[in-house]
Amino acid sequence: MLQCTGEHANREVILSIKVLLDGSWSEERIGLLRELVREDIELTLDATSGDYSVLVSGRPDAGLIKGSHRLEHLLIPWAGLPASTRDLMKEHGNISVHNIHHNAASAAELALGLMIAAARLIVPADRDLRKGDWTWRYRQERCILLSGSNVLVLGYGSLGGRVGKACEALGASVRGIRRSVDEPELEGTVEVFPPSWLHHLLERTDFLVLSLPLTETTEGVIGSAELALMHERSVLVNVGRGSLVDQEALYRSLSEGLIGAAGLDVWYRYPEDGASRTCTKPSDHDFASLDNVVMTPHMGGAFGSGRLESARIEWLAASLNELAGTGAMPFRVDLDRGY
Amino acid sequence: MLQCTGEHANREVILSIKVLLDGSWSEERIGLLRELVREDIELTLDATSGDYSVLVSGRPDAGLIKGSHRLEHLLIPWAGLPASTRDLMKEHGNISVHNIHHNAASAAELALGLMIAAARLIVPADRDLRKGDWTWRYRQERCILLSGSNVLVLGYGSLGGRVGKACEALGASVRGIRRSVDEPELEGTVEVFPPSWLHHLLERTDFLVLSLPLTETTEGVIGSAELALMHERSVLVNVGRGSLVDQEALYRSLSEGLIGAAGLDVWYRYPEDGASRTCTKPSDHDFASLDNVVMTPHMGGAFGSGRLESARIEWLAASLNELAGTGAMPFRVDLDRGY
Repeated sequence: MLQCTGEHANREVILSIKVLLDGSWSEERIGLLRELVREDIELTLDATSGDYSVLVSGRPDAGLIKGSHRLEHLLIPWAGLPASTRDLMKEHGNISVHNIHHNAASAAELALGLMIAAARLIVPADRDLRKGDWTWRYRQERCILLSGSNVLVLGYGSLGGRVGKACEALGASVRGIRRSVDEPELEGTVEVFPPSWLHHLLERTDFLVLSLPLTETTEGVIGSAELALMHERSVLVNVGRGSLVDQEALYRSLSEGLIGAAGLDVWYRYPEDGASRTCTKPSDHDFASLDNVVMTPHMGGAFGSGRLESARIEWLAASLNELAGTGAMPFRVDLDRGY
Repeated sequence: MLQCTGEHANREVILSIKVLLDGSWSEERIGLLRELVREDIELTLDATSGDYSVLVSGRPDAGLIKGSHRLEHLLIPWAGLPASTRDLMKEHGNISVHNIHHNAASAAELALGLMIAAARLIVPADRDLRKGDWTWRYRQERCILLSGSNVLVLGYGSLGGRVGKACEALGASVRGIRRSVDEPELEGTVEVFPPSWLHHLLERTDFLVLSLPLTETTEGVIGSAELALMHERSVLVNVGRGSLVDQEALYRSLSEGLIGAAGLDVWYRYPEDGASRTCTKPSDHDFASLDNVVMTPHMGGAFGSGRLESARIEWLAASLNELAGTGAMPFRVDLDRGY
């Protein structure tokens, strides 16, 4: 279809887009999404039609992937690629897989909160002051500041970039590592390095932030060798996935004081159902016995908060509108790399 | 003394400066300060000489103030004016009083940590996850983000400006209030208002940060009327002085959910001696019973940390060098305003 306005002809690619919404979509959520997408985008909850071109689903079953002869795009309504989805989609190489990054702001804020809470020992200080004990006020010899520190962001993307900006505003020097970079390059004021520089950079790192996806390549990217390069007042924060860091090595480093502190939002064991939500230890190791760790139950994404759910709908709509307008959807996932 | 270089004559005011260091100064600390000050500045621990022109002391006794016929400047080695010092110095109006702001970075970082810890409920989430309870992960409906929020910094100075910059980096809109401003004015990207705007601004505030000194004017600046203007998900953080906020009104607002959460580093009752450091409740009210408060024992200044003590020496040296070079010392305290 061609639209001509005055002397300038803008070719606008309009594809007929029918979107199947998988999972639990309330009438209200569908209404919000419908308000935001172009009029020529059709939304449906009916999987039997067999002619949807986009599937919105994080963990689709094979039936939904095979259920439409027109399916071209899988849109995962969060950032990440579950292993089961990856395996399934590798069998359907003609269907492109996409993410949204609606929770980068939320996770970046939690990361910064964990950095400061860990560095300043906010959790044990709070616990003891509740009992009238002010001891931590007089025990700050080893306290570490962002101002004047070196921050290394492992996985310098949407989330990591936000963390970096805030750290710079507080007076830190920020460096990033990103897989897609071949040579060190300057991005704004932040130097971004390829992964091969990790060991070299860790030696001068005061705060290490992990904000990268879990893949075969990144699993255990921080183990005992890497932790040994850090210093006894350094702080590690993980808001990516637990298994990026070897749990035994991390526990030992924290309990023996090889590193100073850690803030951990992502874990090694998760509740499997509603009943186990109140009785699932997050690790094989007893992190709960340590004063120099801040432990949060995977809250980075602010799952379920009104603000975040609005952002999710907005990002889904923006991706669908871009597809309708340009014929391509943003934030495509590379199934081999895993993100 | 006149120094002429080529065609340009730079007049450099060189006063004979003798500095008495009050309190416990180790040989090492004096050595560090001596390395940083100009050669023509004399440092002494001997109060009997009677000819010092600068006294470095936070709570000098009257003898030290009267002990030198040449005394022109009192340099308090931190930010703030103790009541006893204020009373004493009002009797000696010819001696100017000065502060240093070496801990603004440290306090700003703690303020940001408290904002995020309070907004994201890091403390109760940590406490429960240590017992294997993940419930907070599924209870984030009311979680509030800095991104997209309105931050109001009450006392927009060295400390508040740093907090503001970091909040802006995280996507917040920042406004400031400063006593010395007569009309709203733009400072960088932050609009700074006179105190008379407080009520108007509170109505649209998501995060309120108090970073102002305690004076007769600021005591109780936030009471029940001000808290009533805030909304039920808003966050209050106090890194100034406890009595800026009415403790009963704050306790009631938090326990009744009139505001969402608070992060408090400054308090209403302090330990009076070494023995009471482990048994002093910080308030007449039972803040310790609340989940929506983060309590730290006045750690903003990172008192005693190596990094902060170095910064203190550097700031003292810079103030003395400026005096030697220009005849005036920076960060003069107004005894009537109290800061």
